This record gives sequence, C-alpha cells and structure tokens, in this order.
Amino acid sequence: MSILVVGSMAYDTVETPEERRERQLGGAATFFALAAGPEADVRAVAVVGEDFLDKDLDLLAQNGVNLAGVERAKGLSFHWSGRYHADFIERDTLATELGVFADWHPRIPDGWENSDYLFLANIHPLLQGGVMKAVPKPKLVVLDTMNLWIETTRSDLMDVLSGVDVLMVNDSEARLLSGRRSLADAAEAIKAMGPSRVVIKKGEHGALLFGHDSVLAVPAIILPEVIDPTGAGDSFAGGFMASLAEAGADRSSSDKPFREAMIAATVTASFVPEKFSVEGLLNRTEETVKLRRQAMNEMMIP
Amino acid sequence: MSILVVGSMAYDTVETPEERRERQLGGAATFFALAAGPEADVRAVAVVGEDFLDKDLDLLAQNGVNLAGVERAKGLSFHWSGRYHADFIERDTLATELGVFADWHPRIPDGWENSDYLFLANIHPLLQGGVMKAVPKPKLVVLDTMNLWIETTRSDLMDVLSGVDVLMVNDSEARLLSGRRSLADAAEAIKAMGPSRVVIKKGEHGALLFGHDSVLAVPAIILPEVIDPTGAGDSFAGGFMASLAEAGADRSSSDKPFREAMIAATVTASFVPEKFSVEGLLNRTEETVKLRRQAMNEMMIP
Repeated sequence: MSILVVGSMAYDTVETPEERRERQLGGAATFFALAAGPEADVRAVAVVGEDFLDKDLDLLAQNGVNLAGVERAKGLSFHWSGRYHADFIERDTLATELGVFADWHPRIPDGWENSDYLFLANIHPLLQGGVMKAVPKPKLVVLDTMNLWIETTRSDLMDVLSGVDVLMVNDSEARLLSGRRSLADAAEAIKAMGPSRVVIKKGEHGALLFGHDSVLAVPAIILPEVIDPTGAGDSFAGGFMASLAEAGADRSSSDKPFREAMIAATVTASFVPEKFSVEGLLNRTEETVKLRRQAMNEMMIP
Repeated sequence: MSILVVGSMAYDTVETPEERRERQLGGAATFFALAAGPEADVRAVAVVGEDFLDKDLDLLAQNGVNLAGVERAKGLSFHWSGRYHADFIERDTLATELGVFADWHPRIPDGWENSDYLFLANIHPLLQGGVMKAVPKPKLVVLDTMNLWIETTRSDLMDVLSGVDVLMVNDSEARLLSGRRSLADAAEAIKAMGPSRVVIKKGEHGALLFGHDSVLAVPAIILPEVIDPTGAGDSFAGGFMASLAEAGADRSSSDKPFREAMIAATVTASFVPEKFSVEGLLNRTEETVKLRRQAMNEMMIP
C-alpha cells in the first residue's frame, strides 16, 4: 500500500526552557514520512530550497521515503522558529519564513496519481485541493489544517473538506473551525462539513476519534522527560495512516481499524518529544515500540 | 461498609459565561457524600453556620447521608465565590469567606472511629491529621489538598501524607507538590512522601491512576454542554470511594479494584457539570449510570 504525503520539509529553530536548537530538520511531511515508514511505501511531495542539506534528503531516503515528489527550488527552505513555554504545550511562533514554499505548486510524479492513501498536511487549502484532484481515487484522504487557514481561507477550506474522509486537528482548531466548545458538538459540526471521521489531538492529554458509530479516547504515553514536542502531531498522523495502510482500511471500513490506528499513532508520536527534531522517531526499535504498545494496553483497559 | 468524609459544607456563588447563581449548595463534603451515596453508609463530618438551610441538610439526609458529624456553629457558613472563564476550566476565586470554618475542629461522633473508609477533603492539613488520629484504623485513607496548603503549610501536609494511602489531586497540584513537570515523575515523588497510590485529576481530560504496579488513564465523558463544573472533583472522589467500599478493597488490595473505581468515579463526576450545584448528581438514575458506563467502555477499549 502506498501513502502519499504533501506538506512542508523545513528547518526549525526551536527554543525550549532548557535549550535552543537552530535550523534543525523539521516540517510536517518530514515527520509524517519518517513516522509512517519504514515499512510502508511512503511518497513525499514537497519543496526544499537551495539551502536544504543533501544529508537530510539522504536520511529520508535511507528511511524508505520516496522523494521523487520533492522539488528543489531557487531560494531558501521553509523556516519556522518558535519558543515553548515552561509547560512544553503552549508555544509562541517567533518567525515563519516561507521561502520557496511561498510560490510552490505541488506536482505529483507520474504513477503517483494512483496512491492508496493521501495525507494532506497543514498547507494552504487550495494546494491541498489541487493534490486531491491529482490523486483522484485513494482509499482514504486525511487532512490537517491550522488556525491560519481556518481564519483566512475558510471558504477554500470548506471546499476541500467536502472531499475529505478524516479531519485530523488539535482541540483548539476543532473548536475554531466549528464554533463549538464541546468537542462532541465540534466533531458533529465538522462531520456536517464532509469528513465522516474526526480525530482531535490533545497533546499530552491524548487524542479522540469520533468514528462512524463510536468514539475512542486514547491517552498519551506519559514521558519522564519532554525535550521538544515539535512534530509529534504530524508523526501521530504518520503512525495513524501506516496502521490503516497495513490493515488495508478504506473510508467504508468499520471503526475497528481506525480505533487500532489511534493506538499505533499514539505509540509512534510518543517517541518524538524525547529528543530534538526527528531523532526520537529514528531511535524507535521493534522492542521499544512493543513495550509502548503494552504500556498503552495497561493504561487503557481497566 | 462505612465511608467517613470530612470537609466543607458550603454555599457557592458561581459565575459562568452564561449565568450567575448566588449561594447555591456546595462544599467538598456535600458533593462527596451525595456522589458516594445513596447505597453506601456515608458519614459526614462538617460544620455549618446559622444561615445553613434546613432544607439543604434534609436533602443530604434524604439521600442517605448520615449527618451526626455535622455541627451547627454560631456565624455564617463557608462561602466560596468564583468566576469561570470561557473554557469552563480556568476559574478565578472572587471571595473565600471561611465563616464558621475558621475556628472549627472536627469532632468524630461516638462509634465513627471505626469507619472503614476515610476521605479527607481539602481542608487544613492539621485538621486532616486530627481526623486521621480519631479514626485510626480504616481500610483506606484518601486525601485531597490544594495549592494553598501546599504552599503555606507544607510541613504539616507532609506529616499527614505519610499516613495516607491515596493522594487525589489535580495535575497542577501534583506538579506543585512534587516540583516535577512530568506527571510520572510527580507521582513517583509523591509516593516517596507516603501514599502508595496517586490519582491525578485533569478535568475534561480525564484522570490518571498511578497504582502499585500499573498506570491507568481514564478519559472524561464528553458532555454536549457544560453548565457548572464546581464539585466534579469531589464527586469523582465520592464515586471512587463508593466503588472501593463496594468491592471491600483496602490498601493491600491489587490495583484491580482501584482501576475499576476510576471508571465509577468518572461516571459519577460526569453528572455534575451538566447542572448547577448538586442537581446533576441528584438526577442520576440507574439507567443513565449504566449508559455512561457503556460509553466509557466504548471510549476506552480499542
């Protein structure tokens, strides 16, 4: 099964209460792709600038990510700079330099239009819509978005949402998009916009799946130390879709594989905050993944 | 099995984004006792002032709460006044009028010194310690506390904690008490202070049990509407202890009954925010409790 992701490959400058890291590898597509791999056939559609290091592309390739959809353009790579508060949840964006991202139009390599699964990471809804047209018949389309697009491009976003199977956002985004405070109401309102399932991410408080006919609440794995949570949400999405791809689930499947995918997603995402950048994800082993799945079972089943 | 609770019986003036209610029935012991009942033998130790309405005492008595430990003193009842933010989580305390609570020393009625379960609601640790001495051999002692006591009477609190089986606090209190950001670390640090189990309440994000040799994360029930969350935490404690009492669990029991008690606690507490004051709790029926237990199963088991 093939999973196509479109989103950013970027450099992040991250300040935490303890440390500052300049221009480390980041971006939604980067985290998603590494999280969904290495077993799945993960196809990345992104743009990088002249400054993007070959070693970073190599790292993705070595981890099984197909980079045929990654374009190198004149200019600088997308650069995000942010500072985490003491709670490691709240963060201030200090700078967003779009660079080559500003004028980018995703191009889907030949043959990729038949990709099985499509993840539209958080980019302008018109770009997300363009990719949906170029990959017309996936088994499942999952979309992420953010406050910026909800506030400034709502009508474009609504157009795209009508063709999306699963919306995956955080709790504040779900509330902003729906105008509802209760997450149950928010999910219902979002379902009326198109998606038949809604996943609401709540960081250290876990995540909720509002499925076709069931709701699942998964706790986050409790980490002894948080170093840098950047990318955990996109890695959650990567783990989620890899699990669905492995199960061969599609939009008409029962909630069962989606519920299982929530566990896989949580386990995958749990590795991210333990290290800066993608290091935690890359450190995963079969053994540590197995242990965290056991921890999830213990935490969830009374 | 008998459950003794010591804590406040009070009037609360509550402002929510939608409504203001003056001097409605509240207090930790009130919520706890109504939540733990009506099947359990619930014994309340509290003080009320001359203004406390007979109808409110009658309501407790009619719901099976034994009020032999409730003293009426000269002066006014404890009065708390607070305003909830738009998120219904954050709240500002506008006034705390101790009234008869200021000089109160709990007296344990004859025969109650043999109570099976002891819940020390959030009051001055010296009073909590006094009650522990007066009820020397319960099967289990559960204690709640708050930022005020952690900050101003830490050494008294530490003395009391050394004899407590389960500390039940919210996440910010657990962090303040332990000085640790990670809740896993916080629970470990708190266990070193005496309690062998720690329950951390997280409001709409559910609750965590750090047991003897397992961890359980329970989600909160997702409510379509929140009216007034005041008292949900104390009602959680009431549901928790009623479940343990029904199981006959004690401090040396396995984690199993404690894990089950977390579900019962969540179901019980879920009725509170739906109405002002104790109305939601009193509206519970066998049928609605059963439905919410089913919802918990559906939400928790992948």
